[in-house]
Amino acid sequence: MATREDLLAAAAALGTPLYVYDIDAVRARLARLREAFGSQFGISFAIKSNPNLALLRSLAPLVDTFDVSAFAEVERAIAAGCEAERITFCGPGKRAEEVRRAVRLGIGYLVVESLHEARLADRFAGELGCRQIVLLRINPATSPRAFGVNMSGKPSQFGIDEEEMEAAIDAVAALPHLDLVGFHIYSGSNSLSVEGLAENFVILSDIFRRAVAHCGQSPRKLIFGAGFGVPYLPSDEELDLAALADQVLPGIAALRAEAAFAGARLELELGRWLVGPCGWLLSSIIGAKASRGTEIRICDAGFNNHLAAYGMMGSVIRRNWRIANLSNPSGETGRYTVVGPLCTTIDTLATKLELPVATIGDVISIENSGAYGLTSSPTRFISHPEPREALLEGGRLTDASESLLNHWRLADN
Amino acid sequence: MATREDLLAAAAALGTPLYVYDIDAVRARLARLREAFGSQFGISFAIKSNPNLALLRSLAPLVDTFDVSAFAEVERAIAAGCEAERITFCGPGKRAEEVRRAVRLGIGYLVVESLHEARLADRFAGELGCRQIVLLRINPATSPRAFGVNMSGKPSQFGIDEEEMEAAIDAVAALPHLDLVGFHIYSGSNSLSVEGLAENFVILSDIFRRAVAHCGQSPRKLIFGAGFGVPYLPSDEELDLAALADQVLPGIAALRAEAAFAGARLELELGRWLVGPCGWLLSSIIGAKASRGTEIRICDAGFNNHLAAYGMMGSVIRRNWRIANLSNPSGETGRYTVVGPLCTTIDTLATKLELPVATIGDVISIENSGAYGLTSSPTRFISHPEPREALLEGGRLTDASESLLNHWRLADN
Repeated sequence: MATREDLLAAAAALGTPLYVYDIDAVRARLARLREAFGSQFGISFAIKSNPNLALLRSLAPLVDTFDVSAFAEVERAIAAGCEAERITFCGPGKRAEEVRRAVRLGIGYLVVESLHEARLADRFAGELGCRQIVLLRINPATSPRAFGVNMSGKPSQFGIDEEEMEAAIDAVAALPHLDLVGFHIYSGSNSLSVEGLAENFVILSDIFRRAVAHCGQSPRKLIFGAGFGVPYLPSDEELDLAALADQVLPGIAALRAEAAFAGARLELELGRWLVGPCGWLLSSIIGAKASRGTEIRICDAGFNNHLAAYGMMGSVIRRNWRIANLSNPSGETGRYTVVGPLCTTIDTLATKLELPVATIGDVISIENSGAYGLTSSPTRFISHPEPREALLEGGRLTDASESLLNHWRLADN
Repeated sequence: MATREDLLAAAAALGTPLYVYDIDAVRARLARLREAFGSQFGISFAIKSNPNLALLRSLAPLVDTFDVSAFAEVERAIAAGCEAERITFCGPGKRAEEVRRAVRLGIGYLVVESLHEARLADRFAGELGCRQIVLLRINPATSPRAFGVNMSGKPSQFGIDEEEMEAAIDAVAALPHLDLVGFHIYSGSNSLSVEGLAENFVILSDIFRRAVAHCGQSPRKLIFGAGFGVPYLPSDEELDLAALADQVLPGIAALRAEAAFAGARLELELGRWLVGPCGWLLSSIIGAKASRGTEIRICDAGFNNHLAAYGMMGSVIRRNWRIANLSNPSGETGRYTVVGPLCTTIDTLATKLELPVATIGDVISIENSGAYGLTSSPTRFISHPEPREALLEGGRLTDASESLLNHWRLADN
């Protein structure tokens, strides 16, 4: 993992706000994942979690598949060196034109999320004189009790309700220009519960069994949306991957032992778990004041730079993330309210945060910022300079910034 | 106000998602405001609410001042034809370099929000051999009971606590290169309560009285952060401007009658109230499905395009905004869950929304989207094409889009 010195050197070299992604740490997590789940699962990386092109270039040779959620992400995947055949294209609201382009490109797997979409794909494949490989996305009727955020058992825009999957399979199988070769389920995200995740593998396996039995044809690919979480809060514990594998693998071995599944390629789709803990947002303290008994520190990164860390991306209650004072890592501490530079009361990163004494000029790091960071944030709000992005790999720092809005350098006159 | 036909024509001409701003409607609101508050107040427009350059160009000759919250907004104001002298620069987290540039430019009013910032401005003015006009921002100790969002009476990054303003006034007045010529208070936003807003004018006037008495010098400028709200929810009623003016103006006349205030220029600072109701986000329905008894409609604009309407910009509970089906304005209605195209469960615009029957291809409008819309939203998330922006003025539609990320046209091969 990047050290405090690595991060401080990055901030000194490129200024703040700055996202830093540690590619060696991503490799290490990927190795841990492969070690735990062995050869049972391929790994699909969900680009939406971090579409930085330089990061994708590093990941392209390391993962089996890139999962995309918009056609512009297909273009990113290809620009990063991923072949079209290694791309799965999900998303409940694909525009017709996106479907057409994906079919024309010969994308590996189009994940159809509705019959409307299946019919669109069939029509375009017919017009283009080709066939399109599709997976059908199924939305489970049940989800593990111990799951975190989940999308099962309720009305949903995602996929076909499990209760209606047989009819949908028949309808998709009947479309002349599509090859239905498997299924996709992604039913929850950011869970740290071994029990919940393990139970979910059982639920998914059973749905896949029923779907395949109805299909009457061995699947080529089955995607298990992983939902592996990361420890955002100081009180969270890292997911115990080995314990999870211990609970999951016997069931997977049993599935594979069934004749219909012998040739199936199983895949874990994840984004957050893989890259989240390998990224930091570095921000400088640019203001300090005491107000009504509270010590306030004002940073150069607000929710414009990191919506999720500021508790505005699906959290009902904002909770302090893991934050460190890189410039003063130890010694006497204080309690701080940490805010961003924006002219609005909702720009609060942390309250009652215990940090080693924090003063103007200090650089703080927001951990677990490698996923759903920069591109999930409203960087145009109030036109502050956009954060840079940098990769750390083999001890080398590379500027990996893409378009920089409103950027000016301090040295710039 | 733009008619349904105007908006449909705009969507047909420029595609969706599309933000449309009706400049004639902005003029009409400004006229109402001037009529209600007469010559008592100048009008300052807060650029952060909508920094679209074409919109700013239209507004520059109509308002007295542009209020900016970052140096890049200063550049926008100037690019839009606003002179530096007509700019006030607020913001609790101004970078040192922003302060330096503002001073170098001779910005009209630098609103200092802390002593640290005042000292920075003084130092830069000294180095540049000039003087800088400043206003001191004060954070009230009390706020009206009937106010909406407010920032008073609690620890805050905004301005100087009222309890400490005398000491701060002395400290700023002692800085050799600054001219302290007035005060700024902005203590709450988006209030629809006449009583709350009127009470706030009383609170602000009293603080200004004390500040001016301590200063011993007549102020040149006093900014009353308006906090005027707009009716986002169907159950909200528009703020009664005339009733508010009736309650506020006698107190203001009394203030002006005091010798110390005779020469003061009073200003209302607002953004949302002026442009919010004059803008719409137009979005097309690109998917439709029934899931577990709920009719779901999928739009091409998600929270990536309008964070606030999706309940993710400071709302604890998401509530349906005012939404219309432009393509089918009347007749039989249905109840819909309306979602965006993003691969995440939090991308929900409305639940149990009653709309005339909505089908794929219909264009819906999200009202009150003229403020805190496009630039407050994470447009890069999942790399969907960015919405265009258009102005309606004198019956003419103008494409006012700025940088377009990931944009491709449907006709584009």
